[in-house]
Amino acid sequence: MVQLEQDGIGRRIIATIKEQIHSGAYRPGDRLPSTRAFAAEWGASRTTVTAAYSQLNAEGYLIISHGARAIVAPGLEKASVEAPPTSAQPRSLSAFARRLLALPPPAEAQPAKIADFRYGDLSGADFPVLAWRRASNKAILRRPARLRYGDPQGSSVLRNALQAYLWRARGISCTPDQIVIVNGSQQGLDLCARLLLDPGDPFVIENPGYLLARHAFVAAGGVALPIAVDADGLRTDSLPPARLAYVTPSHQFPLGGVLSATRRRSLLAWASATGAYLVEDDYDGEYRHDISPIPPLQALDADTVIYVGTLSKTLSPTLRLGYLVVPVSLRRAFSEAKRLTDRHAPMLEQDVLSDLLASGAYERHVRSIRRKNAERRDILLQALNDRLGTHVSVAGAETGLHVVAWMNGIDAEREPAIIAAAREAGLGLYPVSPLYDPGGPQPETAGFILGYAGLDGEALRRGVAVLATILAEHR
Amino acid sequence: MVQLEQDGIGRRIIATIKEQIHSGAYRPGDRLPSTRAFAAEWGASRTTVTAAYSQLNAEGYLIISHGARAIVAPGLEKASVEAPPTSAQPRSLSAFARRLLALPPPAEAQPAKIADFRYGDLSGADFPVLAWRRASNKAILRRPARLRYGDPQGSSVLRNALQAYLWRARGISCTPDQIVIVNGSQQGLDLCARLLLDPGDPFVIENPGYLLARHAFVAAGGVALPIAVDADGLRTDSLPPARLAYVTPSHQFPLGGVLSATRRRSLLAWASATGAYLVEDDYDGEYRHDISPIPPLQALDADTVIYVGTLSKTLSPTLRLGYLVVPVSLRRAFSEAKRLTDRHAPMLEQDVLSDLLASGAYERHVRSIRRKNAERRDILLQALNDRLGTHVSVAGAETGLHVVAWMNGIDAEREPAIIAAAREAGLGLYPVSPLYDPGGPQPETAGFILGYAGLDGEALRRGVAVLATILAEHR
Repeated sequence: MVQLEQDGIGRRIIATIKEQIHSGAYRPGDRLPSTRAFAAEWGASRTTVTAAYSQLNAEGYLIISHGARAIVAPGLEKASVEAPPTSAQPRSLSAFARRLLALPPPAEAQPAKIADFRYGDLSGADFPVLAWRRASNKAILRRPARLRYGDPQGSSVLRNALQAYLWRARGISCTPDQIVIVNGSQQGLDLCARLLLDPGDPFVIENPGYLLARHAFVAAGGVALPIAVDADGLRTDSLPPARLAYVTPSHQFPLGGVLSATRRRSLLAWASATGAYLVEDDYDGEYRHDISPIPPLQALDADTVIYVGTLSKTLSPTLRLGYLVVPVSLRRAFSEAKRLTDRHAPMLEQDVLSDLLASGAYERHVRSIRRKNAERRDILLQALNDRLGTHVSVAGAETGLHVVAWMNGIDAEREPAIIAAAREAGLGLYPVSPLYDPGGPQPETAGFILGYAGLDGEALRRGVAVLATILAEHR
Repeated sequence: MVQLEQDGIGRRIIATIKEQIHSGAYRPGDRLPSTRAFAAEWGASRTTVTAAYSQLNAEGYLIISHGARAIVAPGLEKASVEAPPTSAQPRSLSAFARRLLALPPPAEAQPAKIADFRYGDLSGADFPVLAWRRASNKAILRRPARLRYGDPQGSSVLRNALQAYLWRARGISCTPDQIVIVNGSQQGLDLCARLLLDPGDPFVIENPGYLLARHAFVAAGGVALPIAVDADGLRTDSLPPARLAYVTPSHQFPLGGVLSATRRRSLLAWASATGAYLVEDDYDGEYRHDISPIPPLQALDADTVIYVGTLSKTLSPTLRLGYLVVPVSLRRAFSEAKRLTDRHAPMLEQDVLSDLLASGAYERHVRSIRRKNAERRDILLQALNDRLGTHVSVAGAETGLHVVAWMNGIDAEREPAIIAAAREAGLGLYPVSPLYDPGGPQPETAGFILGYAGLDGEALRRGVAVLATILAEHR
């Protein structure tokens, strides 16, 4: 057997081919490139490649017959690829990357069998498959003469349709020029963080509040100033100076308060006085159950408020479609940042959404899914009342797609044990406590965020029944 | 007439309704909400709304009949909305935003009538409409039980399919875990900038080079170290220390050189010695005309190179689909950055692309579009030779979707006049000079980047004929 070259290229060829066989890129019976072609491709000598092939033949990976190209040996079905060594440390990372990696990693898990109360999930059955498919086929067939990069703020057809929709549905008055189509509200928050915060800049955030917003601002170097919320939303009586405040005035996440009119005024006055911007996340503004609609902050002061909207709660979180309404003075900054970040949002989805908005199909869908989610909510509240009665206090049920359930008489310290028992019993349960500022006071009572938009009535009832059993064991 | 409230809410209602009528959100004959509903929506008194409606009636915007809801007066067709005043200055912007807004704005224009040589455009006729539509309908109908946020690195099915494709097509050896699906290569470059550069950090960039890469690194605060390129790509004889180098080794953008094997080795040695990362933009690696394939840098050193791939040159720039292959040591940083930036790439497009890769349709399409673009290239080169002969020197024609045409004997200072005359004659022409570092030596001869992937044979021939006429007038 020919000796492999000292420089290791032969070893690298061997390792690579093995890996490609294990991973299924090459399957049993597949022909490898000729040694000549392989050598040219790798910039290696033909001797090295021949030696590597012989080695793999000797190890049983390849079969080499005289005069024919090497083939992958049978019996080498795709094996689970061993994870590459992760011990390697990066050479150097930016301060942004170091802040990012210091954030707590999110808990990921497969959906629980019986009922998963994860907030943010929607039911696949609610997606308007036919309307989407029809609009999508239309958009694909309407192929333009030239495929070229679009406007960083998004298609003008979509922004015109959204302008009209936002006026009708939310009382928002803006020009299409103030709208920026983003890849979901998370990108909107990240753009706010990049454009408005420098390392060391303070920002106001609701406590408890939405974690991924806080993380976006912290990763940008912002310093969180957590402010308590109550049943009327963010407490505005003693707001410290800051560069921006992140608020969820229509339905405080997670506790569900609606920011009172008085507090809206004092929040806007604070922003004017300190020169802060307000980032208004209207993440579930389409869902109002028992209360009359409240106009967004943006409608009161369009020069101060960056309004963040999303399609993740009405269509699907997997589409990654959202939008911003930005003050005129910030339009150019957002437009250029979107261009540099990823040019623009995907055009096909934008075309489909424009079509659904123009045909009225989107608003019909919203009415239908609002009704379905109101039913889910009623079933959940009824089940909680039937099974847990005074053992549970429910907050934030008037709007949105989730409630917070406080388990009266159960200490917050029992949350991990309850969650583990629930997972064991097929229940996905998510605590409120991680949404509180880690440096401040923590809730004393165990509390869970119950998202209901991904569950049908049967799952909701069974889920609450199982939950009641588990809680009884932990009381 | 009732006096409008002092606080201005009445004035704001009037302005908003006018604007919505001008913009077409309300059309002639449309009914406005009742004063009661409007007042509730805006948190205004009913008296204020009634007064505002009366004012609009007096001004001819609305028609109010006793007992009926106000309607928009006829004859008020959608007018061109006056641009809102842009004099307003932002309250405060981050250093990132200030650097971003100091970058030169891109030249935007509608495609020219006869032939637009803009680089990056593809022909709409080349998009695989039927295959995409079929895969898309399959993906939409395969609706999952729950719609939930996905893996920030992208769907595992797509990453598995890409891993196999990258090995077959580009000799890249990686695990699916090293792949990150991004919204086009621009997002990949922006993620590199954010994760690897701090303000003040030097980065090496090709001169001339790709502007949006340079801009992404400069906006992150990086300090550009422009290094000259020649026919063998980036000159590596005296690379200064830097945190990263951005390179296009397969086909230098824009001049078209292929990085020689010797320079590849010295670039990798430089990176090891200085601890720099290499960002390898393989933006048109699928298009090789006269030369044999060259394995990417990534295949030589997977711990040093971040490989950037795109679907913008084979499918469409409007899809916003690209991918990174990152060193194992950087995987977590890229994954978490993608999550915080926008959660993950849209799932529907990922499913469609997985399907096209798995069925072989994607590779069939690449073969077909490669053939079409080779034909376009031959027509362009032939036309340039026929019409301009020795008046033109063509560079970089061996690979890719563009050539650089230097206009021998025409001074670079004449570029703006030629471009204006070309636009007048229906030709879109784009100069090479803005791609040179503004602080260094500029080309002396007029040169243009001729992108040909968006044009058919007839447009290419006519375009070159018109160009020859214009050049004759400027010689």
